[in-house]
Amino acid sequence: MHIPEEYSVLFLQGGATGQFAAIPMNLLSEGGSADYVDSGNFAHGALVEAKKYGNIHCVASSRDENYIRIPELNPSDFNPKADYFYITTNNTIFGTRYPSLPETGSVPLVADMSSNILSEVFDIRRFGVAYAGAQKNVGPAGLTIVIVRRDLLGHARANCPKVFDWTVMTDKGSMLNTPPTYAIYMAGLCMKWLKDQGGVEGIEKVNIEKSQLLYDLLDDSEFYRTPVVPEFRSRMNVTFTTPNPDLDAAFVKEASKQGLVSLKGHRLVGGIRASIYNAMPIEGVKKLTGFMKQFEIENK
Amino acid sequence: MHIPEEYSVLFLQGGATGQFAAIPMNLLSEGGSADYVDSGNFAHGALVEAKKYGNIHCVASSRDENYIRIPELNPSDFNPKADYFYITTNNTIFGTRYPSLPETGSVPLVADMSSNILSEVFDIRRFGVAYAGAQKNVGPAGLTIVIVRRDLLGHARANCPKVFDWTVMTDKGSMLNTPPTYAIYMAGLCMKWLKDQGGVEGIEKVNIEKSQLLYDLLDDSEFYRTPVVPEFRSRMNVTFTTPNPDLDAAFVKEASKQGLVSLKGHRLVGGIRASIYNAMPIEGVKKLTGFMKQFEIENK
Repeated sequence: MHIPEEYSVLFLQGGATGQFAAIPMNLLSEGGSADYVDSGNFAHGALVEAKKYGNIHCVASSRDENYIRIPELNPSDFNPKADYFYITTNNTIFGTRYPSLPETGSVPLVADMSSNILSEVFDIRRFGVAYAGAQKNVGPAGLTIVIVRRDLLGHARANCPKVFDWTVMTDKGSMLNTPPTYAIYMAGLCMKWLKDQGGVEGIEKVNIEKSQLLYDLLDDSEFYRTPVVPEFRSRMNVTFTTPNPDLDAAFVKEASKQGLVSLKGHRLVGGIRASIYNAMPIEGVKKLTGFMKQFEIENK
Repeated sequence: MHIPEEYSVLFLQGGATGQFAAIPMNLLSEGGSADYVDSGNFAHGALVEAKKYGNIHCVASSRDENYIRIPELNPSDFNPKADYFYITTNNTIFGTRYPSLPETGSVPLVADMSSNILSEVFDIRRFGVAYAGAQKNVGPAGLTIVIVRRDLLGHARANCPKVFDWTVMTDKGSMLNTPPTYAIYMAGLCMKWLKDQGGVEGIEKVNIEKSQLLYDLLDDSEFYRTPVVPEFRSRMNVTFTTPNPDLDAAFVKEASKQGLVSLKGHRLVGGIRASIYNAMPIEGVKKLTGFMKQFEIENK
């Protein structure tokens, strides 16, 4: 979790959705353009919001495939003069993840990491901006962490709200106004807890093991299936289905009786989703896989 | 706390400072203008931020008098065609309060009520927009409540960030994205507590009594003085000084030894400030007045 000096770390109010506007307002030059990858619901939302502020180019999209994969990226489609290149490193609703970061040359990579920040090791130097809403792996909702390379500061538009101006917030140490103090305090406690788990390196091993337990079961089963293309499987959100929607509903209901809750898939995709963020212990995943095996026996 | 149907009540992320930009972005028409009263630090900040979005007219200011009063308002200075008229009902740092609301005719009154919402009875129908950061009388920092008359919706600018668009947020029931859930939960608990105090009517009586205890002492004393013009005295923030800054510092230090904390005046004004929001019981104020009398005896 060491952040080099050349980056400014901001603790801002609100969620990642606020930053969907802040990003172009801080980075998009007059007449400039930015490249976006449309890999999921929040990636799409970020792209739509950014279009309000200038020329946004969608370099690749998996929307027509219902986002079951990270779209294929062809570097010849990238604009080498773009102000930035935008991705969403993990797609919460669909359960996909970038297995490696795109090579964008001198174009700063801007990444929404809301649903997998602190879950695996990243080299911060690969990013111009890495940001994340707190509520998955960091702390309570209402706080967004923005890590921005300092050479990208100083370009906010005149009409950028002050609370979204990363340069102002850097100067003010994130305290232009009263910050979301409780959420920041809780984030501090989570960071300490994470250190006790061996830091990001430690939790990454656990997260790989947790997700592998589920994917192994899914791959071995004729009953369950996961729509996600294997190469792009998320380690945080494992999406799957039973043979039909009625059984999906029965699965969610039965599971909840055993204390396995919040398993209903997002309304955009249906099915079942196991969100196994840092806070979920491996015992929780084992309890789930045990339940899944039993449910399969009883319902196939 | 009953809010009529013709108002939309929004629970938004962040503090009032974010709304300094949201207000003109939602209300200021193309080529239109708005009237602002500059009665304190946050009023001034709101005015400066709004200027980024259009034609803002400062109808009155007490800045040259270091905000010791609400400036005199001359209705002939008001623009009858303004899109809105902006005030700050209580000025936290300087300890002033509007004894009555300005008459703005058909021009919607927009009020930052961050430091006295729920402390006294207001008729919501007097306002086009009443809003408040939560952290004084409502709940933890990171939540802002915006109460907007529905006929004022539907005019947000194309470049208004979605999270600041009151129309979008009304349509989404404040849940365009994950709202600051913990702060909203705590606000709910505070509302229940407030009901147990007899609601706003009940707490208003206590607040008058609390502030009167302090102002009576200040008026009777040759030792203490308060800079605020009596007519404009706040019931939430009572500002005063001893005969000199060294004694002010000694006062703050001695008081803190007796559990009377956070009495140092804001750095913009110095001196001493007793913030006696809803959560401060009358016993706390009595303890403070007792200390003040003792300190006067020992130091005059």
